[in-house]
Amino acid sequence: MTCNHSEEAEKSEKIEKMRHSASHVMAEAVQSLFPDVKFGIGPIIEDGFYYDFDLPRSLTPEDLPIIEAKMAEIIAQDVPFSGEEVEKEEARQIFIDQPYKLELIDEILDERMTIYRQGSFTDLCKGPHVGSTGEIKAFKLLSIAGAYWRGDEKRPMLQRIYGVAFETEEELASHLERLAEAAKRDHRRLGRELALFSFHEEAGPGLVHWHPKGAVVRRIIEHFWIEEHLKRGYEIVYTPHIAKIDLWKRSGHWELYREHLYSPMDVEGQEYLIKPMNCPAHILMYKTKLRSYRELPLRWAELGTVYRYERSGVLHGLTRVRGFTQDDAHIFCRPDQLEDEVVGVMELALFMMHTFGFEQYEVLLSTRPEKYAGTIEIWEEATQTLKMALERLELPYRVDPGEGVFYGPKIDIRLKDALGRAWQGPTTQVDFNLPQRFEVNYIGMDGVEHPVVMVHRTVLGSMERFLGCLLEHYAGAFPVWLAPVQAVVIPIADRHLDYALQVEAELKASGMRAQADARPERMNLKIRQAQLQKIPYMLVVGDKEIEGDTVSVRLRSGENLRGRSLEEFKAMAKAAIESKAP
Amino acid sequence: MTCNHSEEAEKSEKIEKMRHSASHVMAEAVQSLFPDVKFGIGPIIEDGFYYDFDLPRSLTPEDLPIIEAKMAEIIAQDVPFSGEEVEKEEARQIFIDQPYKLELIDEILDERMTIYRQGSFTDLCKGPHVGSTGEIKAFKLLSIAGAYWRGDEKRPMLQRIYGVAFETEEELASHLERLAEAAKRDHRRLGRELALFSFHEEAGPGLVHWHPKGAVVRRIIEHFWIEEHLKRGYEIVYTPHIAKIDLWKRSGHWELYREHLYSPMDVEGQEYLIKPMNCPAHILMYKTKLRSYRELPLRWAELGTVYRYERSGVLHGLTRVRGFTQDDAHIFCRPDQLEDEVVGVMELALFMMHTFGFEQYEVLLSTRPEKYAGTIEIWEEATQTLKMALERLELPYRVDPGEGVFYGPKIDIRLKDALGRAWQGPTTQVDFNLPQRFEVNYIGMDGVEHPVVMVHRTVLGSMERFLGCLLEHYAGAFPVWLAPVQAVVIPIADRHLDYALQVEAELKASGMRAQADARPERMNLKIRQAQLQKIPYMLVVGDKEIEGDTVSVRLRSGENLRGRSLEEFKAMAKAAIESKAP
Repeated sequence: MTCNHSEEAEKSEKIEKMRHSASHVMAEAVQSLFPDVKFGIGPIIEDGFYYDFDLPRSLTPEDLPIIEAKMAEIIAQDVPFSGEEVEKEEARQIFIDQPYKLELIDEILDERMTIYRQGSFTDLCKGPHVGSTGEIKAFKLLSIAGAYWRGDEKRPMLQRIYGVAFETEEELASHLERLAEAAKRDHRRLGRELALFSFHEEAGPGLVHWHPKGAVVRRIIEHFWIEEHLKRGYEIVYTPHIAKIDLWKRSGHWELYREHLYSPMDVEGQEYLIKPMNCPAHILMYKTKLRSYRELPLRWAELGTVYRYERSGVLHGLTRVRGFTQDDAHIFCRPDQLEDEVVGVMELALFMMHTFGFEQYEVLLSTRPEKYAGTIEIWEEATQTLKMALERLELPYRVDPGEGVFYGPKIDIRLKDALGRAWQGPTTQVDFNLPQRFEVNYIGMDGVEHPVVMVHRTVLGSMERFLGCLLEHYAGAFPVWLAPVQAVVIPIADRHLDYALQVEAELKASGMRAQADARPERMNLKIRQAQLQKIPYMLVVGDKEIEGDTVSVRLRSGENLRGRSLEEFKAMAKAAIESKAP
Repeated sequence: MTCNHSEEAEKSEKIEKMRHSASHVMAEAVQSLFPDVKFGIGPIIEDGFYYDFDLPRSLTPEDLPIIEAKMAEIIAQDVPFSGEEVEKEEARQIFIDQPYKLELIDEILDERMTIYRQGSFTDLCKGPHVGSTGEIKAFKLLSIAGAYWRGDEKRPMLQRIYGVAFETEEELASHLERLAEAAKRDHRRLGRELALFSFHEEAGPGLVHWHPKGAVVRRIIEHFWIEEHLKRGYEIVYTPHIAKIDLWKRSGHWELYREHLYSPMDVEGQEYLIKPMNCPAHILMYKTKLRSYRELPLRWAELGTVYRYERSGVLHGLTRVRGFTQDDAHIFCRPDQLEDEVVGVMELALFMMHTFGFEQYEVLLSTRPEKYAGTIEIWEEATQTLKMALERLELPYRVDPGEGVFYGPKIDIRLKDALGRAWQGPTTQVDFNLPQRFEVNYIGMDGVEHPVVMVHRTVLGSMERFLGCLLEHYAGAFPVWLAPVQAVVIPIADRHLDYALQVEAELKASGMRAQADARPERMNLKIRQAQLQKIPYMLVVGDKEIEGDTVSVRLRSGENLRGRSLEEFKAMAKAAIESKAP
């Protein structure tokens, strides 16, 4: 079911040309403002472009409209772009004052290279470009950032300007709106505002500290996840966070995954590593006894916290971290069980995604890469099995040729969030490598040993990334079942506090996460703050409510439901919680 | 309420003398059998004694009765013990053939030392001893073990014989019975037999791998623990397993606790440690904002897995490990809240102990040691507060003078298990050190900053040690609410299998951990194996049960309850689960 992309490809080629040209126009504009500018590079990126500049002074956000105005001028002049091939020596002459360009020229192996010109600006560039600057339609410069020349911390720090460009003003406007909405939903900001988690320079970057409210969400998700796994025949295990390096040498991680491993610790002259994954520990437990074909499949799940090195420069909130808790599981099965197991995993994954309100997704089947473990036959068979599973589920999917992991084919699901952005979702990976390296076998019906098929899978990915994704998806307004505080009881005046506390106690007794706001503050402030905290139910209580033994329910949507009996409210909240309604 | 121990002390002195004399008699017996023996040392230990020997051949268990017989002879001869003081040089002459003794003599600073003789045996020994060998009453040699001279792996390996001695044959017999019972309850054996956990040389010693059945017990305990903490106003948090070394330098652990820390890992030129405790991470979270006196107390609990170095020689099953999950919590409170908080912790601790069937315990209040942080006044005040809390609870306790941690006084509870053995239980520690080192403050009513009082506490200790303790306490027969498998359904013949599966499904649907034993094995074997697995309910089903829509319940005690309807059985099991009955 691979789909045809040629029309889309054409459209995207066109817009990429325009973005690339916009970056040249921006460079020209900057040059007209700073004649001494030294140019780095100016490629296109998703939705736009950037250019790196070495400038005599630091840019400020106030510079951007000035550069934009200059760009608009150049675009209005509709100057043509022209490319030509030049000899290396000629190029050196053209860029004689541009040390970064000279460095790039020296590294080009060909003796001839292309340059592009428009107006007073010339760049070392393969193209292609639009015909003339007038073809650049809607654009906007977004931000300034520091960027090391060639990403190398030992080279000079240049100034990078980011911009976006679209075919129409409408597309640009809607993109900017999405950006503004995404900024509002930025999980790092929400994490702080809702007191969900923190990072600490003192402890080290990329290490998440889950505060009580964030931990409530995690705990509920974990509990739900465990119960759902138990229902589906999984068993839970726990394994240690460190192990002798030999285990990681045997698994191949030390050789193939070194860049993500922390340095070893010494224990009585032996080297230990903090674990980057849980698989070898599960294998050791599997191997504590001979396993018969009748015992399979074994489905062992672990909320396993693993540590992987990432450069501090790429760390990002909860979505790119150095320590994270995978909702991991390993299935040890016979080859004839693989299809059923994959179907089971996919059903679980779809159920989970649905529960958390992700209705849009893309399914990818990644096949044998150039370097691979196992035989071609075993790959073909497993890939075929994965296809059969997907077809049994009537799931549309796309084949990603050669994108499997070296140890086996895999199925990935990419979620789309409320803003239509893609997130890495569930993954199901067949592994031919570890069973062989660790001799993970079962005794078949024939009485002899056969290697098991091992499946690695996560359905949420990690608790960290998943919370980040949920936060942005829900814009921080968790569904009632996940909300750290489900209801806040707000007395209108001090004399209503006793009743508020009584309501709080009743709600707590019924298992709800309720709080009376007893602070000596004004009611309006309390409501405003509860609203900012995105608490699903604000229960306002005053004389009328005390008299009628009721609560006035204010929803975070702003809707008011006055004079509900506490029983009515509890039933309403219970229904929302049990249905896991968003 | 300190109690008077003088009578007990006298009794224990007497029996210790006898045990020490028994070790000399054992040495004499060994010498008579191996004239070339070189003697190590022969001290008393709990319940008995040992002696280390350098012998021309390895001892076997068959040697023990022979040595015992020789000892009995010496005891029957009622030879007197006599001590005398000798000069160092004279001692060297006496022990001229005993290199280990000569080494000890050389290290004695005094010029004069005591030797003790009985019969043909002379030992370098401070005494005291019984008057004559006839005073040694009931004794038994238990085992042989290898032991490095002076515990040093680079010195020769000697052979150690362990023995016990008591005043009466009855006491000896009951001690041996307790030992046999303890061996049967050894959690390491039960852990293997019940497939609860494993250790792996490949991963490293002291690192627990929790298998599915052990993980069920842990998960249920953790879930119960969390719910109980939430009820009592605790909040749950999660923190990372690694942090920059600077954090541990600031906390003082790097300086004071170094021997239990693993070596640092390098991350981008910074040193990181795997965490030995959770406190600094909780403190960092506390300090993310200014805290008002109105926010306190904060009670933050974490099932935090920590790693501490222990020599491989002292590791022991689940009770002495290198990685363990503490049921940790930190309370940040004002000084005026401390008493209430301690009362709350003790109530929780007693509730937990009661739930798990520990009705006997000892409470110890440990006071200011020689080296301490903070002022004498603050210690006095906090110690007084702890006393007041204990008295409010009407808990008898013993003061352990000077046994507090350097950072504050503490209350420990020592549990007694079903065999009367003591286990380290809940601990509640006041800490004046960390709040000062990390400047953990709150804004008082007066608008200025004050240091918080910090309480560290665990009520179970760690999940690992607690499971070890529970296993030995219950002899592996977990109460129904904790049992990994609560009910096994056993068909009498193959034709009853469908019904067995139907019963299994119904029990599972009602939330029970039930399994039908569908293996093609004989019913009696299945019952025997279920019995060995200590499964609380064995439901045997055959023609009669199918006809009457019933089950025959066999309890692990051997008791049979025939012809129960499934509803009756479910109600019975449900009552046992809900009451957490042992």
